[in-house]
Amino acid sequence: MVKCAICVHLIYSDIVQKCREELKAIRETNPDLKPTLAIIQVCLCCYIPADFVSTQIGLNVMQICLPRQCTEDEVSDTANSEKSIRVSFLSRSVRNAIKPQKDVDGIYFFCNTLLDAPLIGKMAVLVGVEGPLKATIQCLLQNNGMMVQTCQWSSKHLQKQFLCVVCYFQQQRAMLLCFRRDIWLNHKRHTLIFFLFFLSFRSWIRIDIEISRAQTPKPISQLAQEIGLLPEELEAYGNTKAKVHLSLLNRFQHQPNGKYVLVAGITPTPLGEGKSTVTTGLVQALSAHLKLNSFACLRQPSQGPTFGVKGGAAGGGYAQVIPMEEFNLHLTGDIHAITAANNLVAAAIDARILHEATQSDKALYRRLVPSVNGVRCFSPIQMARLQRLGINESDPSDLTPEEVRAFVRLDLDPEKVTWQRVVDTNDRFLRKITVGQANTEKGHARQTQFDIAVASEIMAILALTDGLADMRARLGRMVVGSNRNGQPITADDLGVTGALAVLMKDAIKPTLMQTLEGTPVFVHAGPFANIAHGNSSVLADKLALKLVGEEGFVVTEAGFGADIGMEKFFNIKCRTSGLKPDVVVLVATVRALKMHGGGPNVTAGVPLPKEYINENLQLVADGCSNLKKQIQIAHLFGVPVVVALNVFKTDTQAEIELVCRIAEASGASAAVQCHHWSRGGRGSVELAQAVKKVASQKNNFQFLYNLQDSIVEKIRTIAQKVYGADDIELSPEAQAKIDYYNQQGFGALPICMAKTHLSLSHMPEKKGVPTGFILPIRDIRASIGAGFIYPLVGTMSTMPGLPTRPCFYDIDLDPVTEEIKGLF
Amino acid sequence: MVKCAICVHLIYSDIVQKCREELKAIRETNPDLKPTLAIIQVCLCCYIPADFVSTQIGLNVMQICLPRQCTEDEVSDTANSEKSIRVSFLSRSVRNAIKPQKDVDGIYFFCNTLLDAPLIGKMAVLVGVEGPLKATIQCLLQNNGMMVQTCQWSSKHLQKQFLCVVCYFQQQRAMLLCFRRDIWLNHKRHTLIFFLFFLSFRSWIRIDIEISRAQTPKPISQLAQEIGLLPEELEAYGNTKAKVHLSLLNRFQHQPNGKYVLVAGITPTPLGEGKSTVTTGLVQALSAHLKLNSFACLRQPSQGPTFGVKGGAAGGGYAQVIPMEEFNLHLTGDIHAITAANNLVAAAIDARILHEATQSDKALYRRLVPSVNGVRCFSPIQMARLQRLGINESDPSDLTPEEVRAFVRLDLDPEKVTWQRVVDTNDRFLRKITVGQANTEKGHARQTQFDIAVASEIMAILALTDGLADMRARLGRMVVGSNRNGQPITADDLGVTGALAVLMKDAIKPTLMQTLEGTPVFVHAGPFANIAHGNSSVLADKLALKLVGEEGFVVTEAGFGADIGMEKFFNIKCRTSGLKPDVVVLVATVRALKMHGGGPNVTAGVPLPKEYINENLQLVADGCSNLKKQIQIAHLFGVPVVVALNVFKTDTQAEIELVCRIAEASGASAAVQCHHWSRGGRGSVELAQAVKKVASQKNNFQFLYNLQDSIVEKIRTIAQKVYGADDIELSPEAQAKIDYYNQQGFGALPICMAKTHLSLSHMPEKKGVPTGFILPIRDIRASIGAGFIYPLVGTMSTMPGLPTRPCFYDIDLDPVTEEIKGLF
Repeated sequence: MVKCAICVHLIYSDIVQKCREELKAIRETNPDLKPTLAIIQVCLCCYIPADFVSTQIGLNVMQICLPRQCTEDEVSDTANSEKSIRVSFLSRSVRNAIKPQKDVDGIYFFCNTLLDAPLIGKMAVLVGVEGPLKATIQCLLQNNGMMVQTCQWSSKHLQKQFLCVVCYFQQQRAMLLCFRRDIWLNHKRHTLIFFLFFLSFRSWIRIDIEISRAQTPKPISQLAQEIGLLPEELEAYGNTKAKVHLSLLNRFQHQPNGKYVLVAGITPTPLGEGKSTVTTGLVQALSAHLKLNSFACLRQPSQGPTFGVKGGAAGGGYAQVIPMEEFNLHLTGDIHAITAANNLVAAAIDARILHEATQSDKALYRRLVPSVNGVRCFSPIQMARLQRLGINESDPSDLTPEEVRAFVRLDLDPEKVTWQRVVDTNDRFLRKITVGQANTEKGHARQTQFDIAVASEIMAILALTDGLADMRARLGRMVVGSNRNGQPITADDLGVTGALAVLMKDAIKPTLMQTLEGTPVFVHAGPFANIAHGNSSVLADKLALKLVGEEGFVVTEAGFGADIGMEKFFNIKCRTSGLKPDVVVLVATVRALKMHGGGPNVTAGVPLPKEYINENLQLVADGCSNLKKQIQIAHLFGVPVVVALNVFKTDTQAEIELVCRIAEASGASAAVQCHHWSRGGRGSVELAQAVKKVASQKNNFQFLYNLQDSIVEKIRTIAQKVYGADDIELSPEAQAKIDYYNQQGFGALPICMAKTHLSLSHMPEKKGVPTGFILPIRDIRASIGAGFIYPLVGTMSTMPGLPTRPCFYDIDLDPVTEEIKGLF
Repeated sequence: MVKCAICVHLIYSDIVQKCREELKAIRETNPDLKPTLAIIQVCLCCYIPADFVSTQIGLNVMQICLPRQCTEDEVSDTANSEKSIRVSFLSRSVRNAIKPQKDVDGIYFFCNTLLDAPLIGKMAVLVGVEGPLKATIQCLLQNNGMMVQTCQWSSKHLQKQFLCVVCYFQQQRAMLLCFRRDIWLNHKRHTLIFFLFFLSFRSWIRIDIEISRAQTPKPISQLAQEIGLLPEELEAYGNTKAKVHLSLLNRFQHQPNGKYVLVAGITPTPLGEGKSTVTTGLVQALSAHLKLNSFACLRQPSQGPTFGVKGGAAGGGYAQVIPMEEFNLHLTGDIHAITAANNLVAAAIDARILHEATQSDKALYRRLVPSVNGVRCFSPIQMARLQRLGINESDPSDLTPEEVRAFVRLDLDPEKVTWQRVVDTNDRFLRKITVGQANTEKGHARQTQFDIAVASEIMAILALTDGLADMRARLGRMVVGSNRNGQPITADDLGVTGALAVLMKDAIKPTLMQTLEGTPVFVHAGPFANIAHGNSSVLADKLALKLVGEEGFVVTEAGFGADIGMEKFFNIKCRTSGLKPDVVVLVATVRALKMHGGGPNVTAGVPLPKEYINENLQLVADGCSNLKKQIQIAHLFGVPVVVALNVFKTDTQAEIELVCRIAEASGASAAVQCHHWSRGGRGSVELAQAVKKVASQKNNFQFLYNLQDSIVEKIRTIAQKVYGADDIELSPEAQAKIDYYNQQGFGALPICMAKTHLSLSHMPEKKGVPTGFILPIRDIRASIGAGFIYPLVGTMSTMPGLPTRPCFYDIDLDPVTEEIKGLF
C-alpha cells in the first residue's frame, strides 16, 4: 500500500469519489436525512468555497453569519451547538474551545497532532491549500519555528525527502499530514487520510459498518453499541478496550444462546499451527461476509514471554486482534490483579508461620481477636473457621484454652506448603529460591519458588468461575498446604478470602476488544495449558453467547493440541459451565502433517528443512494419521468436526486437496482451506460456511467420564481413549496422593492432565499416532479452588527464562509518535 | 443521615422542592432553554399523568403518539432520538433497546439493578406507584419469582423489616430501591435517591455544579469536560478514573500557570497529622466555596500496606478522594507497570550473568547479533553501547575479537548488583533471599532481596520525568550494578530500555479522580519518602497548573515532615521541574505539638495517654518549637508559610488559639484552624482564604545549595541548616562511595537524604528541636536514572511486613452489591 508523495492527488480523487458514494448511500438508506454542512462566517474577508463542496459531493450547505464584533464565546457556542460546522482562521482560544468533531477543516487536528512534533528549524511544504486556510497554517507553522514553502502538486520538490509535507484538501475536508517522508511512506498515509475523512463525517451521520472496518480501531464504545451493550454495562479502559459488566447475563437471561464453536488443533510443531489466527479469521468471515453476529473468545497472553522468546500473541497477518500492543501488554490489568492476589496469600502464609512460631496461644488470640473499644468479637471469616473446627461459640470469651489453641494455630507445616509466589516475568533465577533469610524472620528460612503468573491457581479460577459469589467461594477453598496433622489449610483459614475477592473484582469482567475487521473479541483469562486447563473464561463465552443471539456464533479456542486443550475444554470447562459445543474446528497445517508423516525435526529459530518447503505427498498422507486420531477424539464427545487447513504459501494444490480428501474420509463433516492470514475474513469464508452448516445439525455431546468414577479410572479413561495408551502406571507418590485426596473428599473432581503437547503420548519425540505405551503418572496435585486434580506426566516447567538475546532488544517506543516497535 | 423507612415521604417532598428549584435556576441562567418532557404513547390504554409533572415542577410536556401497530424498532428509535422521553410499560426487547438516560420512569434501572439480586421467593412491597407503572413493576417482580404486596405510605407494614421495599415516585422520576432494610438503612438511601433523580434530569439539562457534588462520583468524562479537557485527551478507566494525555501540555503551552501550593507538615507522630486530608479539604474549599479553579495532586498509595497495618490512604471524613477503593487498589495499573518493568531488569541481569558465564565470546556474539535472512546487524540499542565503548564500527563483521569481547561481556559482578526485585505486597520473607538455586541455573545462586514496588527507582523516575523522551532516557541511565572493573552497568547496556519505556507508556499519564465534593484530583506516582523523594509527579503538577489557569490553585503534598518532604520538594522536585512554589501550607496538630513539648510516647494501636485528650497549654507551648523550626526551614527557601492546624475534637479553644498565636509570632504569614474532616470544604474556607491571600504576594524562592557544590558540602548544608546538626560524620563506606561517584561523574546530582521522619535529627526519640548532634552518614547510594544521590542516615526498611492480624481480615466484597467492606 506504499505510494509515493506525488501520488496523493490520486488519493484525493478517490476521496471525492468515496465521499460522493457514501453520501449517496446515506441518502438512500435514510431518505429523511439531509446531510448539511453549516459554515460560520465571522469575518467576511474569508473566502470559503462552500459551493465547491456541495457540487462535488452533494451536501446541503447552511451559512451562519455572526457579526464582526461577536465574542469568542459566541463563536465557539455556535460552533458546538450546530450539527456540523466548519471552523477556520480562529484565534487560539476559540480553536481550543471548539470540539474537534466540529472542525471540518481539521485545523484542530493539525494544531494538536502535527505541532506535537519537534519542528523548530525544520522546513514545511504546504500543498493544495489556498486562501485563508493557507494563511492560517502558514502562520501556525511559522509560530512554531518552521520555515514554510508553498508549491503546486506537480512540483518536483515533492519528490525529494522533505521533513514535513502538509497536503491539505480543503474542499473534501481530508488532510494528509506527513511528518517525515520515511515514516509517512511506511505507516501513516492510509490511516490518516481515512481517519480525517471519517472524523469530518462522523458528527452528523451514522457511520457505515464498512467504514468502521478500517484498520484504525473504532472507538470501543462504538463497538459496544453495535453489539448491543448499554453504556453502563461498559467500563472503557482507554479507547480500544473495555471491561463488560456481568449484569449483562441477567439482562439477557431469557435470550437463547448462540452457536458455540471450539477451535482446537492437531498435535502441533513447536512453531504452533495458527489456532488463534483461524479463530480470528473465522469470526471475521462470519461477521463481515456471512453477516452473522459472531464473537471470538481468546485467552489473555502472559506478558513475560512477550519480552522473552515468543513475541506477541494477537494472531497475525489480516487475522489479528487490535491494537496488538494492548493485547500483549498490561491489557486491563487482570494478570496483575492475579499476581497481587496470589502473592498476598503467599505473604500471609509465611507471616503466619512466623507469628505462630514466636507467640503464645494467648498472645496470638489477643491479636487475632483484638479488643475494639473494649469489645472483642470474631470477624465473619473467623466465625467460618470456628464452624469448620466444630466450635459453636460466638463470644470470644467463651472458648476453652483447647479451642483457642485450635483456632489460633493453623500449624502449617513449612515443608508442606504448596502455594507458590508468582511474577509475570520470565525470571529463571526464581525457579528455586530460599526466602526468609533476613534477621527479622528469625531463622524461618525455607526453600520455595516463583511461577509465571498465569500458572497461579487464581488464574484457573478466573477462567472457570461463573460470577462473583462463586469466585469468592473458590478463592476461599484454595488449599495452600497442610498442617502437621496432614489436614489441608485453605485461604479461608488464613482469613484472606475477602481481600482476594476485592483484588479480583475487576478482573472477573471480560475485556472487549476487536479484530482487524472490527468484529468483537473477548479477551479473558489465560491459564497455563498443562498444569491448568488452558482455556479462556467461562464468563466470556457465556456473555458472548448471549450477545450474538440465537443465530450468532461464538468461537473460542483451546490451548495445545485437541488431545489436551479440547479434552479439558469438554471434560472440565463445559462440565463447569453447562454449555454444549456445536462444532469443533480442527486446525491442521501441511507442515505439521509432514512432521507426523516422518519429516525431520522442526525447531524454532532454525530454517525449515526442504521437506517442508517442497511438495511431498507421501509425508502428508502418512501424517494424516494424527489428524484422523484427533477427529476421532472429538467424535468420542459426540461433536462434529470441521477441519481447517491453515494454508502456507509453500503448500501445493495437490497437498491441500489430499489433506481435505483424507480428512473427510476420516469422518470430518467438512474440510476446507483457509487463507485468513493473507486475506482476512475473505480468506475464511469457506470455513465459515462449513461451520455454519455443521453447527445447524443436532449433536450428541457427552462427557468422557463420570465424576463419580475413581481418580485412577478417570486418568485411565483419558490415557486409553484419548492418548491411545495401553494403560497407566502410578508412581508411589501418585498413589499416596490419590489416597490422600480420596480421604479429604476431593475424589470427585475432574482430571486435568499435565502432559506434553508435542505428542499424543508422554514422549515429545513420538509423532503421528504412538501406540503400545504405558503412560507414567509421576505425581498428582490438586487445585481445589479451581476444582480439578492434575496428574503430572513428566516434568512441567512453570517458569520460562530469557534467552541470550531476548525480544526486548528490538522493542522500543517512539517518544514523539508513541508508536511501539518490535512487538509482533 | 440514617432515616427510618416511613420517613421517605419527607424525602419525597424534598425532591419535589429541589426539582422545582433546579428547574427555576436553569430557566434563569438559560432563558432560551425550555426543559421539555417528551412522552411517547403507543398504547392509549396507558394512563400517563404528565399534567402532574408539569404542574408540580414546571416542565413543558410534549406527547408523541405512535400508532398501535408500530414496530418495536420504531418505538426505540423515536425514544432514543427525542431529547427527553419517558418510557414505560414496554416489552423486554424494547426496554433493552432504549438508552437508560431516556428512561424517565427508571424502569430500566429498576430491571437491571434490582433484579440482579436473588429475589426468588422473597416479598416485595410496592409503595407510591399507581396505574400502568404499578402493573409493570408488579409483573416484573412476579416474573422474577417474588411475591408482591402493595400498600400506602402510611401503612404500618413499612415499619417492619421487609426484605425489599420498593418506593417509587412516579411523578418526580425518583425511585427508591431498598434491598434489605439493614443494608438500606446503613448505606444506600441517600445515594440512590439522588442518583436516580440526576439520572432523569441529565439528558436534557446541564447539571448544576451543586448537584454534581453529591456523594456519588460524577462520571469522570463529565469532570474532564468541566475542567476543560477534550474527549481525546482522556482515557477513561471505568467511570470514575481516567488517564490524561500529556499532549495537553502542548495545547496549553501558552497558558500561564496557576498558583502552586505545597502542603507539608511538622515532625509527625507515628499516627500522621493529616496532610492528605488538609490537601483535599483545601481544594474543596478553594473550588466550591471560593469559586476558584483548583486541583489536588496526590501520591498513589502502595497497595501492599492496604492489606497490612495501614488501611486506605484516600484522606478521610469529608475530605476524601472517591471512590476510595479504586484509589487504594490497582487504580490504573501504574504500580503494576513499575513492578513489571523493574522485574524485567532484574530477570535480564541474572539471565545475562548466566549466559555470559556459560558461553564463549563467539557464541554470545552469534546470539546477540543473529543472522536474519543471512544478514547480521546491530540493533539501535546495541549501536549505542558500541558508541559508549568507543567502537565506531557499524558492520558486525568488522569488530576485532577484543571489540567483540568488550561488546558481548557486561561482566557484571554478582556481588555488585544493586538492582533489586519488587512486589507490591507486604512480604517480609522476601527481605533477604537466595535466588538461582535450581539446577538449570548451574550454581549461579546469589543473595538478594525484594523491595516494596514503590521503592523502585522506576517509581522515582516516574515522579520526576517531564515526558516520554525524558523518561526513556532516564530508564536507560539507571545503574544496575558494576562490572568487575568497577564500571557502572546500565539498563541501556542490558538492551532493555525500549521495553521498559513500552511497559511504562501508560503509567506516565496522570490519573484523574475527584474529591468528595467533585473537584479534580490528579493521582500520580508515589515514590518512597526516605530512599526516594516522596513527592507526587512533576507531570501531574504541570498539567494541573495549566488546567486551573492563571487565577487557579494547584495543591500538592510532600511526604513526611517538612524537614524531609518539603526540603526534597524544593531541592529535587522543583529543581527538576523548574516550577516555583507560591506558598507552603504547614500542617500541625495539637497532638503532635504536645508530643514535641514533652508528652508521653504516641504508639499506633494503643489508646492515647490523657495528656493528649485533656487541655495542656504548657505542652502545646513547648512543642511549638518544632513548628517554629519548620517555618524557618520553609523561609530558608524564601517561601511564605500558612500554618493549618488540623483540629481534632479533643482540642480546646485555648489550645487552638495558642498555636495560631505562636505560629504567627514565629513568622507564619497566617495560622488558621481547619475542620475539613467533619465539614469538608466548608471547614477549610478560612485556610483557603489565607492561602489565596498569601499566594498573591511575591516571593523569593531559592534552592538551599548549588548542584556544583561537592557531595559532602551538599549533605552538610542540609544537615546543618535544615536538621540543626552541628556537623556530619562520614563512615569509611560513605567516603569511598563519594569518591566513586565523583570519579564516575555523578557528583553534581542533588541529595536525597534517607533519614527518619520522626525527629528533625537522626534519632527518632528526640522530639522538639534537637541540637548539639553530629549526623552520621552510614552509607551512600545513587539513583542515577532518577537523578539523585541518597545518603543513608540509619537503616531504612524497604519491605514492610504483615502483622499477626492484618487488615485483610476485615476486607470483603459483597458478591451481590459489589460493595467493598473494611477498606478505610
